[in-house]
Amino acid sequence: MTSMIRMDELFDGDSRSIARAITVVENGGGDAAKLMKVVFPRTGNATIIGITGSPGAGKSSLVDKLAFYYKEKGEKIGIVCIDPSSPFSGGAILGDRIRMATLGLDKNIFIRSMATRGNLGGLSRSTVDAVAILDAAGYQKVIVETVGVGQDEVEIVKTADVSVVVLVPGMGDDIQAIKAGIMEIGDVFVINKADREGVLRTQKELEALLSLAHRPDMWMPPIVRTVATESKGIEDLAVAIEAYRSFQSESDEANPRRQSIAKWRLIELLRERLLTDLLSRNGTSERIETLAGEIAEKRLDAYSAVEELVAKNDL
Amino acid sequence: MTSMIRMDELFDGDSRSIARAITVVENGGGDAAKLMKVVFPRTGNATIIGITGSPGAGKSSLVDKLAFYYKEKGEKIGIVCIDPSSPFSGGAILGDRIRMATLGLDKNIFIRSMATRGNLGGLSRSTVDAVAILDAAGYQKVIVETVGVGQDEVEIVKTADVSVVVLVPGMGDDIQAIKAGIMEIGDVFVINKADREGVLRTQKELEALLSLAHRPDMWMPPIVRTVATESKGIEDLAVAIEAYRSFQSESDEANPRRQSIAKWRLIELLRERLLTDLLSRNGTSERIETLAGEIAEKRLDAYSAVEELVAKNDL
Repeated sequence: MTSMIRMDELFDGDSRSIARAITVVENGGGDAAKLMKVVFPRTGNATIIGITGSPGAGKSSLVDKLAFYYKEKGEKIGIVCIDPSSPFSGGAILGDRIRMATLGLDKNIFIRSMATRGNLGGLSRSTVDAVAILDAAGYQKVIVETVGVGQDEVEIVKTADVSVVVLVPGMGDDIQAIKAGIMEIGDVFVINKADREGVLRTQKELEALLSLAHRPDMWMPPIVRTVATESKGIEDLAVAIEAYRSFQSESDEANPRRQSIAKWRLIELLRERLLTDLLSRNGTSERIETLAGEIAEKRLDAYSAVEELVAKNDL
Repeated sequence: MTSMIRMDELFDGDSRSIARAITVVENGGGDAAKLMKVVFPRTGNATIIGITGSPGAGKSSLVDKLAFYYKEKGEKIGIVCIDPSSPFSGGAILGDRIRMATLGLDKNIFIRSMATRGNLGGLSRSTVDAVAILDAAGYQKVIVETVGVGQDEVEIVKTADVSVVVLVPGMGDDIQAIKAGIMEIGDVFVINKADREGVLRTQKELEALLSLAHRPDMWMPPIVRTVATESKGIEDLAVAIEAYRSFQSESDEANPRRQSIAKWRLIELLRERLLTDLLSRNGTSERIETLAGEIAEKRLDAYSAVEELVAKNDL
């Protein structure tokens, strides 16, 4: 499979080669490993921007406008979307398809929705790999966009150089919960739909929360107000992102962060590899179906089933 | 640790024993396995209700009102919340603490927020175990509430007997995305905050989506309108949940579902066990830190690091 990809074309930024390479990492296994070993030495030049927030916050519009802003500056931009429908239907949702048709016409913007196949995980790993591919292909900015505030999605955003958290005014009581969950990952906060009622209250609440967590030697995340649909505040957002990048390169904050990202990534890969290795052994998949049946009928508990599988394979 | 839990008290529904048992499964490892083997044969009597939906949908209020409704009918109710802040701060968020203080005073309602420790996963596994503990302890209804629409959270809700998806009127464009992501797991749909503008439109959109996916021999998920803060529609919700349970017990739909839940659970446990086993080997944790450092400094790619770790351990 890897042989189908001309690496010179990939490093030259050819979008079809990139698309093929991302399919290879989605499929995982030995081909993905081989490909990423070649890709890896070329990475490290792109600024990776993670954008997350609750559904309805207008992240897609914001990402699109930010991508166009960078494009106007003469840069190439990659967008990787984590597709919320993928665990179930395996395909891109309608909205993404429309976006891809529109944005995809621009040769300086590459957009891709990541899909998972089944429940064996690997979304985090393949997303991080897709970002590295775009980096190696010479894209100056790579934006990772996740819908949802799940644990996996947040982990993915944490691997970015800059994490942007998008809120909207007056989303109700759960805003407290969201804030609590994403406080620690936000390098930059955006209040989108800032022409709506309640923007000041949301800003004040957010400022109070950020002040609580702030230590003197740490970065104080700026709050940017945007109205993405009207392209308002996009430059302010780009400036805030750049400010964090400068801070990061001058401070020691980047190193422990990079170390912990690398460790997380290594463990994710390891977890996937261990399971894949076990499942690929003769008869294991069939045995799992049988054991699952016994668990479903309450004839066996799952822990005993795991012990049998682990013992059988001499692990 | 298990020895600290009097199993007779646990099966008798003693809330302190339940709390201790849940801490044991959160910690994982051998103690969790030992405990769950004893708990397992006592499970299978509770109705497990999974409730999910986007942030701001008012799930907490809905869960509280539903719990009170069941309590009035003379039942004992367990509530297990997936805490969105836990991957980061490791603790319950303020809102949950307040809820626990209020609901916790009622001896027929047990409420617990699940926390993860670090990034090694296990939230899905420990949540499913906590539900089983409450089941074994004689709670007739166990409600699992997740904030967020992440993959892990959705997987957890899928393990319930009945999955309830909560929406609100007019949440914006991303509602399409949410619907696409959760369509396949909803046995019952709730439009909460149904006194708001746009409720009819949301209901019509949802009906259209459900009709599209519907097959004649399948369950057609009912749509219930609620205003949880005013306790409106709670009985309708309970009736819809019961209707699905009856359908389930009379149809063949339950069996393949139980089989796939059991399989998912077995694989989750296996994944955790394989990683834990590897990490517990002499020197592996230190080696991972070193390798992560090399990856962070771009001297090594993660795939090669995984290969070294797997080869070294003769897996």
